[in-house]
Amino acid sequence: MSALEILSRDPGSQARAGVLHTAHGDVRTPAFVPLATKATVKGLEPRDVAALGYDMVLGNTFHLFLDPGHERIGRFGGLHRFMRWDGPIITDSGGFQVFSMGHGTVADEIKGRAPQGADRAGAILAIEEEGVRFRSYLNGEERFMAPETSMEVQAALGSDLALVFDECTPFHVTRDYTARSTERTHRWLTRCLDWHAEHGPEGQLVYGIVQGGVYEDLRRESTEAVATSAVDGVAIGGSLGDRKAQIYEVTGWVTRDLDALAPDKPRHLLGIGEIDDLIRGVELGIDHFDCAMPTRIGRHGMALVPDPDHRWRVDLTAARWKDDETPIMEDCPCPCCAAGFSRGYLRYLLKARELTGLRLLTLHNLAFVQRVMTDLREAILAGALAETAAALRAGASPGLSARG
Amino acid sequence: MSALEILSRDPGSQARAGVLHTAHGDVRTPAFVPLATKATVKGLEPRDVAALGYDMVLGNTFHLFLDPGHERIGRFGGLHRFMRWDGPIITDSGGFQVFSMGHGTVADEIKGRAPQGADRAGAILAIEEEGVRFRSYLNGEERFMAPETSMEVQAALGSDLALVFDECTPFHVTRDYTARSTERTHRWLTRCLDWHAEHGPEGQLVYGIVQGGVYEDLRRESTEAVATSAVDGVAIGGSLGDRKAQIYEVTGWVTRDLDALAPDKPRHLLGIGEIDDLIRGVELGIDHFDCAMPTRIGRHGMALVPDPDHRWRVDLTAARWKDDETPIMEDCPCPCCAAGFSRGYLRYLLKARELTGLRLLTLHNLAFVQRVMTDLREAILAGALAETAAALRAGASPGLSARG
Repeated sequence: MSALEILSRDPGSQARAGVLHTAHGDVRTPAFVPLATKATVKGLEPRDVAALGYDMVLGNTFHLFLDPGHERIGRFGGLHRFMRWDGPIITDSGGFQVFSMGHGTVADEIKGRAPQGADRAGAILAIEEEGVRFRSYLNGEERFMAPETSMEVQAALGSDLALVFDECTPFHVTRDYTARSTERTHRWLTRCLDWHAEHGPEGQLVYGIVQGGVYEDLRRESTEAVATSAVDGVAIGGSLGDRKAQIYEVTGWVTRDLDALAPDKPRHLLGIGEIDDLIRGVELGIDHFDCAMPTRIGRHGMALVPDPDHRWRVDLTAARWKDDETPIMEDCPCPCCAAGFSRGYLRYLLKARELTGLRLLTLHNLAFVQRVMTDLREAILAGALAETAAALRAGASPGLSARG
Repeated sequence: MSALEILSRDPGSQARAGVLHTAHGDVRTPAFVPLATKATVKGLEPRDVAALGYDMVLGNTFHLFLDPGHERIGRFGGLHRFMRWDGPIITDSGGFQVFSMGHGTVADEIKGRAPQGADRAGAILAIEEEGVRFRSYLNGEERFMAPETSMEVQAALGSDLALVFDECTPFHVTRDYTARSTERTHRWLTRCLDWHAEHGPEGQLVYGIVQGGVYEDLRRESTEAVATSAVDGVAIGGSLGDRKAQIYEVTGWVTRDLDALAPDKPRHLLGIGEIDDLIRGVELGIDHFDCAMPTRIGRHGMALVPDPDHRWRVDLTAARWKDDETPIMEDCPCPCCAAGFSRGYLRYLLKARELTGLRLLTLHNLAFVQRVMTDLREAILAGALAETAAALRAGASPGLSARG
């Protein structure tokens, strides 16, 4: 039986709304999953995240493996107890972070988050059939991660959703490399599932990861390989292209085949989460998303606003806000706007590097994304996704469903 | 009529408990006043500060004068509206910060708070009868602050309690320098009161500042000068000595005379706030205190605990907490301990420089201090200060009054 209970399917698209049942409770889908990379959503407490309406957070296998170590978190009783988040947790496999180092294109996420990070001290040493050898960005120590290691780490963390260890194929490699890499990912999928069948914690769901780069035949082969395996859900990873149209096309190849091969299995889109991506992703049948965007841009002084022409963003560090007395959004119920903090005040805090500024923008941005997701979900349940998606794309303020 | 309504006096000491009435509401005294140096208690929102039980915060005239500027905050409708704190606000005069630069002994507060700060770029250029000329630590610009400037800034900020501009006499200067400096402070007191009488915002209370270093005759002369002027309250500033015994002795000279000269006027002790200092200060008849200690040490990974032998502090960044599953304090109702965050988890967050760690320790430390103050106040009201003070000094967990 699928962990995903689908309550409604949109007749005009592949979108579905439902409830994902996990060992630590339910996740209303489609859902955005905030990053708790290092066992915390940066600047927030778990009670803040819950108050924003989020059901699930994502912990980072790679970072937690290096520090404080999964054995330690295991001794604390797992990641839930360690970070005091009682709800569902998804853990990525670590593949993305490991391979970001290896291919020399360190992901924004790592760049943004670790000034002492991978681009300075970390390095991949060898990619072998057995696994990946790399140098820790924390202390230069040599470490090894195999598919079994990743599953073992995620077992110790005790996440509700574990992702299998994959080679995260980058964009600039050849078709031939992508094909060989994707095949290895499939062999690693089998090893992960074998390990999990024997050692995995009870109730932990396992998602396979579809790779295949931007090549339709490889993506479809990978989709079939994952969908027909013993996975509980399917994640879509790797490079999906360098333009939005291509990202959506590649995602569509996968979800179209999934609609045929595994229509009820939950689907996660890895690392994609701009506002327009979330809308399109939902239409393409994605059930949950994670992305650093709302929290990371918040810490860089960007706030989400209903302005599609500017990627739904406004830069609050700009000088033009110095004397601005209006909140980020007039009609926003988030803790930042509802308290009446002005753009001028927020700009001052951000320029002065005050922690409170980072926190307030994080709260606002996560609240914004949550309202977008709630609108999309309510629209699917009400059979009105097309109208809601069109309104949001045209710059409607999210929270439509709450306003009735 | 005094703004301070004294509800009870302790028969065994100079302690008093009461309510300070201000334009933005009441402050239960004795009270600790958290620092909102740059228009925010670092890492917290106003709702957090209020939820901890604090009635008043302290904004910094010097820092806000330089950035974003008092004219700008004035255009926002004042500091309350700017930072969205509806309760009472006290603003210091800027004297402490200005003179910290001039005497070459940059205060911990500035060192701790401004890495690009006064010790690098700021410098005093001239101390004259008219005022002080200095270089901004932000951009090297030459600025001037006279007593009238300080009052004008505080008028624009619209604080409920303004402090007069004083020369904050340091510890290492001669008796002769201290005497001359204290006399100038008294002349500046008059200028501040004159300016305020003509231009000050209605309802803004003005506190004079007693200087005089560690010299009994100078302190007593200064006490008389301030107490017999038209001030609404009295603050005790400058160097009080380099040992606790001396600090308490000097404070006692002042409050003993105040008991005779101005028994009903509220009294503020500037920049002093270790746990034992708060207890002794209350016994000496202080009504409110400000200090960077609880918030600053929190951001450096120190948590307050009922451990008098270690200055009520524990360093949570120490390796020995790596695997510790206990909270900072078992019986602590603060948002950090009540949620069950372990010392091991907090250590991890602090070492990883996660913002959430700084926030959680700030919350814990401010909650701890607030319980100490509440215990002392309740004890005075109940006629049992001696017992409560003895218990707290012996390492009792604060919150005695709440436990009955």
